[in-house]
Amino acid sequence: MRWSKALTVGLAALALGALAVAQGLTPEQMEEGKKIYFQQCAGCHGVLRKGATGKNLEPDKLKAAGKNVDYLKAIITNGFGGMPAWGKLGILTPEQIDLMAKFLLSPVPEPPPWTFEDIKNNWVVYVPVSKRPTQPETTRNWQNYFGVILRDMGQVAIVDGDTKELVGIVPTGYATHILRSSKDGRYFYVIGRDGKAEIIDLWTKKPTLVAEAKVCLDARSIDTSKYEGYEGKYAVVGCYWPSNFVILDGQTLEPLKMVSTQGYVKSTGEFLRENRVASIVSSHFSPEWILNIKEGGQTWLVDYANIDLKGKPINVRMIDTERFLHDGGWAMDKRYFLVAANAAKKIVVIDAKTGEFVASIPVGDKPHPGRGANWVHPKYGPVWATGHIKDNKIAVIGTDPKGHPEYAWKVVKMIETPYPGNLFIKTHEKSPWLIVDFTVAPTPEANATLCAWNKEDLEKDPICWEVPGAKKLKARMVHIEFNKDGSEFWVSAWGNKDTPTFIAVYDSVTLKEKTRITGDWVRTPTGKFNVWNTANDIY
Amino acid sequence: MRWSKALTVGLAALALGALAVAQGLTPEQMEEGKKIYFQQCAGCHGVLRKGATGKNLEPDKLKAAGKNVDYLKAIITNGFGGMPAWGKLGILTPEQIDLMAKFLLSPVPEPPPWTFEDIKNNWVVYVPVSKRPTQPETTRNWQNYFGVILRDMGQVAIVDGDTKELVGIVPTGYATHILRSSKDGRYFYVIGRDGKAEIIDLWTKKPTLVAEAKVCLDARSIDTSKYEGYEGKYAVVGCYWPSNFVILDGQTLEPLKMVSTQGYVKSTGEFLRENRVASIVSSHFSPEWILNIKEGGQTWLVDYANIDLKGKPINVRMIDTERFLHDGGWAMDKRYFLVAANAAKKIVVIDAKTGEFVASIPVGDKPHPGRGANWVHPKYGPVWATGHIKDNKIAVIGTDPKGHPEYAWKVVKMIETPYPGNLFIKTHEKSPWLIVDFTVAPTPEANATLCAWNKEDLEKDPICWEVPGAKKLKARMVHIEFNKDGSEFWVSAWGNKDTPTFIAVYDSVTLKEKTRITGDWVRTPTGKFNVWNTANDIY
Repeated sequence: MRWSKALTVGLAALALGALAVAQGLTPEQMEEGKKIYFQQCAGCHGVLRKGATGKNLEPDKLKAAGKNVDYLKAIITNGFGGMPAWGKLGILTPEQIDLMAKFLLSPVPEPPPWTFEDIKNNWVVYVPVSKRPTQPETTRNWQNYFGVILRDMGQVAIVDGDTKELVGIVPTGYATHILRSSKDGRYFYVIGRDGKAEIIDLWTKKPTLVAEAKVCLDARSIDTSKYEGYEGKYAVVGCYWPSNFVILDGQTLEPLKMVSTQGYVKSTGEFLRENRVASIVSSHFSPEWILNIKEGGQTWLVDYANIDLKGKPINVRMIDTERFLHDGGWAMDKRYFLVAANAAKKIVVIDAKTGEFVASIPVGDKPHPGRGANWVHPKYGPVWATGHIKDNKIAVIGTDPKGHPEYAWKVVKMIETPYPGNLFIKTHEKSPWLIVDFTVAPTPEANATLCAWNKEDLEKDPICWEVPGAKKLKARMVHIEFNKDGSEFWVSAWGNKDTPTFIAVYDSVTLKEKTRITGDWVRTPTGKFNVWNTANDIY
Repeated sequence: MRWSKALTVGLAALALGALAVAQGLTPEQMEEGKKIYFQQCAGCHGVLRKGATGKNLEPDKLKAAGKNVDYLKAIITNGFGGMPAWGKLGILTPEQIDLMAKFLLSPVPEPPPWTFEDIKNNWVVYVPVSKRPTQPETTRNWQNYFGVILRDMGQVAIVDGDTKELVGIVPTGYATHILRSSKDGRYFYVIGRDGKAEIIDLWTKKPTLVAEAKVCLDARSIDTSKYEGYEGKYAVVGCYWPSNFVILDGQTLEPLKMVSTQGYVKSTGEFLRENRVASIVSSHFSPEWILNIKEGGQTWLVDYANIDLKGKPINVRMIDTERFLHDGGWAMDKRYFLVAANAAKKIVVIDAKTGEFVASIPVGDKPHPGRGANWVHPKYGPVWATGHIKDNKIAVIGTDPKGHPEYAWKVVKMIETPYPGNLFIKTHEKSPWLIVDFTVAPTPEANATLCAWNKEDLEKDPICWEVPGAKKLKARMVHIEFNKDGSEFWVSAWGNKDTPTFIAVYDSVTLKEKTRITGDWVRTPTGKFNVWNTANDIY
C-alpha cells in the first residue's frame, strides 16, 4: 500500500502546486501572502475571504467578476471606499502589491487551528497573585494613567496623566488592538490582533506585565467581569480565528472554558466557520458579557456567574440582530448598548437589562463609533453619537426612551462633517465639545485635522484645525481620550514607526493645545485609554 | 488562465482518483460505500469516522493499527462487542462487506451540507391547520393507539390498543427512529434517520400525515414544547448531520431557527464538526428542552419561550457533563433527567429545575436505557433502571434525594441478566414486573427471549421465556411498551422485511401471552409508542 500512498501524496502535491503555480507564486511567496493577508486584509475581508466590513475576495468570485491581477493591484495601491490605499500610504511595496494581487486569485489556504491545549501551552504567569502588591506601591495618581498603544512597536506605554511623564513601556503583541481596565482600574487588560492577551499591573512602581496568554490566532476584544461580586474574577477574549470566545481567570489568564461561535447567519442563513467575535462589553445589570458576533449578525449575552461551579451551566442568550456587527458602547444610562452593524449601515440597540434587541437605526455608510460619545442635549435629552468611515456624517441618536420617547432610537441630527474617514469621536461632561478625527480620510490635510462641535447647539459651524506638524510627519491624528477630571483631551499623531511623533494635549474647554507628549518612544501611538474613564465606561 | 485551471482540475481529479484507486474502488463503489456507511455505520462511528459509541475508523488510524481489508471484513461479518454481525445477520452481502472494508481504508468523503434554505425547500404542509378537525372524528379510543415503527418499510402503523386492529399505515422516512406525542396526544411526531420529520394527526378517521420537513441529513430525536402555555407550539429536531438543532413550528413544521452544536469537547477539548444531538426531552419545570450533545459531552437546556418574539434571545444553558451522551429518560418525579454516557459507562443526572449537572454514576458497559424504567422499591424508594448493550447487567439507581438520600444517584442493585445485548427495559405501576429484552445478544435464543424481574424483590430469580415462533422467523424480540391502563405490554418480533412477523401482547400481571398482532403489514416492527404513555412520559 506504501507506493500508492506515496503516489497519492505526490499527485496531490502536484495538483496543489499547480494551483499556486497558476498565479506564478512560489511556496515562499504563498507564505508571505498569507502573512500579509492575515495582518492587513483579514480584519475586514475575513480569513476565509468571505467578506464582512470589506468585500468578498474568494478567488472564484473575483475571477467570475473579471477582476484580474492588474485590477487588484490598482485597488490595493490606491484604496477604494473604506479600504486604505496600501500602496500610496507606503505600507505595502509594489512587489508586495503584485504578490497580493496574485495571492488573492490563488486558492484560499486553510487557516490553522488553535486549541485549548495550545492556549494552556502558551500561557505564562510572570507574577503570581500572591507576589503582587495589596495596595498601590506607586505614589503617582495611577487612576489618571493613560495606556497608549504604540501600534507597530508591539508596546503599550503607560503615561502619567498628571505629569505627562512616561511611567513605563510594556512589550505586548505585535498589533495591540485595545486595552480594557479592571473595574477598580488597577489592571490593564491588553488584546492584540495576534490573539495575545496580557495583564499589566499599575500598582507596582513601574507598570508590570503579570500574565500573558495567546488565546487565539486573531482577536479584537477583551473584557472582564465587572458586575458586583464578580469584579476581576474572569476575563473573556473574543476571537476572530478560530471563531470563538475564551473565558480566562481574571487574575492569571488561565484558560477556563471556550465556546465556539461557528454557526448560522441570524439563526436561518448560511453556515459560517468564520463567525467572529467583535466588540465585548461587561453588563452593569447582571453578571453578563455582551458579545457581538460579526458575520452571524447575532448578539450573545454570556452569563459568567457559574464558570467556576462544576455542573452549573454557561448561559448564553443569542439574539438575532444585524450583520456585520463591529464596535459600540453604552448609552449614558449604561443600560442600552449601541453597536454598529457597519455593512448594514445601521446602529443596533441592545437592552442589557432585559436582554432584548430594541432597535435597528439606519445611519450613514460604515458607522464606526468606537465606543461613541454621550451627552445631554437641551432638546433631545441624552444622546449618543457615531461617526462614519465612508460618509462625511455624524449620526446623533436619542437614547432616553423614558424621558424623551419621541427621540429615542432615532437619528435626531445628522451632522455634516468636512471630510469622511472618521474613526473616533468623543466628549466628556466637563467639555462643551464633541471632538472628531478624520484618520482614514483620503487627504493628508484631512488626516491632520480635528473638528469640535458645540454639543448644545449642533447647528453651529464646528471649529476645525489642522494640527501643526502632523502633515510633515506624515501622521494621521487619531483617537481622542479625556483625562480623569475631563479638563483635557489627548489625540495621537499616528506616523510610521521609523519616526517619533507626538501626542497632542488640549484644554477641553478652550480647545487650546496645552502641551505635547514627545520622546523617542512616541512611535505609532494610536489608542489611548485613561484608567478612570475606561474602568468606569465614561465616554 | 484557462489552461492552468483545467490542468489543475485534471491533476486534482487524478490525485483524488488515485486515493480511491488505492483501494481499488470505482466512483460508483465509493457512492455505494457512502450510502451503506451512512445507513449502517455512521450512527455509532460518526460521519467523519471519529468514533462515538463505536470506535474511531479514520483510515490513517486503521492503517497505523495494522487493520487491513481482511481484518475489517472479519469484523464486519462477525461483529465485535456491541457491533452487530452485519454479515452473519444477513444484512450485508459478502460483496458489500468487501466494499465496506476497502471503503473504510479510503479517505473520508466530505459530508454534504444541509441549509435552512434546503429545509424550507423540503417542507410540505399536507393539511393546513385550518382544515384539521377541531375534535376527534374517530370514535376509537385514540389515546390508547400504538404507533408502531415498521423500520425497514419506511412506515409507521397505527394500531388500536383496545381492539388490536390496524387503524392505518403512514409512509415515513426510510428508517424511522422514534415517535413522540404532543402533550395532548393528538399528534405523533416522527423522526427518521434520514432527518425527515413528520406529523401524524390521530383525530381524523384514519391517521393522516399532515406535515413533513426534511430537517437534516441524519437525525435521531424530536420533541415538542410541552410546558404549560406552550403546548404544541414548537417542535425541535436534534440533528446528527449537520450537527445542530432546528426549531420548527409545532403545527406545520415550518423551520424557524437553527443553532449549530459544532464546538469544543466539554468547553476545553478538541473542536468537533461532528457534535451530534442525541436524545431530547421537554422539561416539565420551564419552557425548555434538554438536548444531549453526544461527542461534546454537554447537555444544553434550550429555552423556547422567546422563539416567536422578534428581538428576544434564544437562551441556551450549556452544561459540561460526560462523553458520549446517548438516550435517557425522566426519573419518576419528572424533575431529574437520567441519560447514558455510553462510552464513559456512566449515567448522567441533570436537574431540570435548577439546570444543574447533579451526578455521574458509574454503571456497566454501554448502558442503553431507552427512556429507562421507574418504580418504587420497598427499601430504596423511587428507582430508575437501565440495561446494557455489552454487559449482562441491569443497573438500578436511587432517584429520591429528598426521601431516600442514602440511595440517591447510587447503583442500589446491579441485577445479573442471563444475556448481554439488552436494548430496552420497561415497567408500569400496574405491573409487578420489570420486563427486559436481549435484542442485540449474540445468540438467536437470547434474541428470542424476554425476562421479567419482580420489582419488589430484585433478589428473586427472573421469569424468562423464549417467545414461541420468534427464532423460526429469525426475529429478535425488541422494545416493550405498555398500554394506557397498564394491563398489558407489547413486544415486537423484529425480522427481516421479506417475512411478516408479529407483535406479542402480554398480560402485565400474569405474563401470559394474551394475543398476537399479525398480518401481512407486520414487517420489521421495532419501537412502539402508546399515545397516553408517550404524551405523559410514563415509563
